Amino acid sequence: MKRMMTQITQFEGKIEYRFNDRELLVTALTHSSYAQENGGASENNERLEFLGDAFFDAIIGEELYRDFPGKEEGFLSRARAAIVCEKALALEGRRLGVGEIIRLGRGEEKNGGRERESIIADAMEAVIGAVYIDGGFEEAKRVVLHIFRGLIEDAKSGKFIVRDYKTALQEVLQQQGITDIKYIPQGEEGPDHNKTFTVRLEVEGRKMSEGRGKSKKQAEQQAAEAALKRSQNVI
Amino acid sequence: MKRMMTQITQFEGKIEYRFNDRELLVTALTHSSYAQENGGASENNERLEFLGDAFFDAIIGEELYRDFPGKEEGFLSRARAAIVCEKALALEGRRLGVGEIIRLGRGEEKNGGRERESIIADAMEAVIGAVYIDGGFEEAKRVVLHIFRGLIEDAKSGKFIVRDYKTALQEVLQQQGITDIKYIPQGEEGPDHNKTFTVRLEVEGRKMSEGRGKSKKQAEQQAAEAALKRSQNVI
Repeated sequence: MKRMMTQITQFEGKIEYRFNDRELLVTALTHSSYAQENGGASENNERLEFLGDAFFDAIIGEELYRDFPGKEEGFLSRARAAIVCEKALALEGRRLGVGEIIRLGRGEEKNGGRERESIIADAMEAVIGAVYIDGGFEEAKRVVLHIFRGLIEDAKSGKFIVRDYKTALQEVLQQQGITDIKYIPQGEEGPDHNKTFTVRLEVEGRKMSEGRGKSKKQAEQQAAEAALKRSQNVI
Repeated sequence: MKRMMTQITQFEGKIEYRFNDRELLVTALTHSSYAQENGGASENNERLEFLGDAFFDAIIGEELYRDFPGKEEGFLSRARAAIVCEKALALEGRRLGVGEIIRLGRGEEKNGGRERESIIADAMEAVIGAVYIDGGFEEAKRVVLHIFRGLIEDAKSGKFIVRDYKTALQEVLQQQGITDIKYIPQGEEGPDHNKTFTVRLEVEGRKMSEGRGKSKKQAEQQAAEAALKRSQNVI
C-alpha cells in the first residue's frame, strides 16, 4: 500500500491534479478483478468509468465546438471519435503509467492485463470521473485538456486516423450536395493467392483518384483516402 | 419574428433560464431545413445538438451515480438509457412547446415536421447545448434536472420502460453469478392466423414465470418482464 501511495503521488503530479479524497483515485485504479478477489471489500472502477466516459465526451466535444466555429456536426463527430476512443485513452494511459499502478486480480495479472488496452482505457475514464467528483467540472475539464492536449492538437490539424475513408468522403461530399460517387473496378493483377485490385473513384462522372489493395474493399478505401486528402476538408 | 420573440420569452420561463445571448436559443430552435431554405443565412441547430447531447448524458449520468451509490454500472447504464433517448427528449420537448416554436423549412413543415419525434428531440439537445454555452455547466445541469425531473424520478423508482426484458433479466442474474436461464416453449393455441404462444422461464432449473404472446419472442419477453418485476432489482 505504501508503494501504491508513492505511485499515486507521482500520478497526481503527471495529471497535474491533487485529490482531496485520494480514495476516489484508488477506486479509479481498481479493476473489477481485484475487487472481486478481495471479496468486494474495495469498490471497483466501473461506476467511475460510467461517469467519466460521458464527461470525457462532453469536454472534448466542447473543445472542438469552440475551435471549429465553421465546421458542421459531421466533422465535429469524426474529430471527436478520433480522441474519444479506446486507442487514444490507452495511449495516454500508458504514457501516464496507468498499467503499472492499476490494481488487478491475480488471474488478470497473469493474462497480461497490465498491457491490455481496454483495461487501461477504462481506468483512464474512471480517473476523469474521479477528478469530476473530487474537484468539479472545471477541474475535470482542465485535467482532460492537459492529458489529451497532444491528441487534440493532432485532431485539430487533421492528423488523426480515419478508420473508414469511404464513409468520411461520402459525408464530406454530401455536405456539398454531391451524392454521385462511384468506385469502378479497373481489374486485378498477380496470381490467385496474391492478387492486387485497382479501383477508380469517380465523383459526378469525373475521375478523382485511384486506389490499389489486396482486396476490392482495400482498394476502394485507398481511393477514398487519396480523394479526401486532396480535398480541402482534410479529415 | 416578433411572434417568435414572445414564444422565446415563454419558453425561457418554462425552462427557468434567461439567455444572455438569445441568438443561441434561436439557433437551437432552427432546423437544418429552415437554414437551408434561407441560403445558410441562419445557422442550424446541429452543432449545438452535438454539444448538448454529450452534456445531457453526463448530467443524467452524474445524477444516477450519486443517487444509487450501491448500484453497479449495468444498472446505471440502463437507467440512463431510459432518460437519454429520443422518446424522453421528445416527450419533454412537446410539453415545453418546442414543436410550435421550432423554425422549419416549408417542405418539412408540410411533411408534419412539427410533430416529428426526432426533430423535437434534436432541438431539445440543442437547447441543452445552448444553455451550456450561454450559462456554463452548473446552469445547464440545473436546467436539465428541472426539465427532466419527472422522468428522473420515474427512473429512480424503477418505473421506466425497459425495451428488452430478456437482456435486462440476463444482466441482473449475471450479477448474481447466474447464467442458467432457459425459455421453454409450452405449446401454441388458436388458429394459424391468430396463435398464442406460451413459454416457461426456468432459472437454474426452477420455474420463475410464464409468458404468453403472439409470437415466441413476445412470450419470452413477457416471461422475462414478469420475472424481473418479481425480483428485488426491479428495473
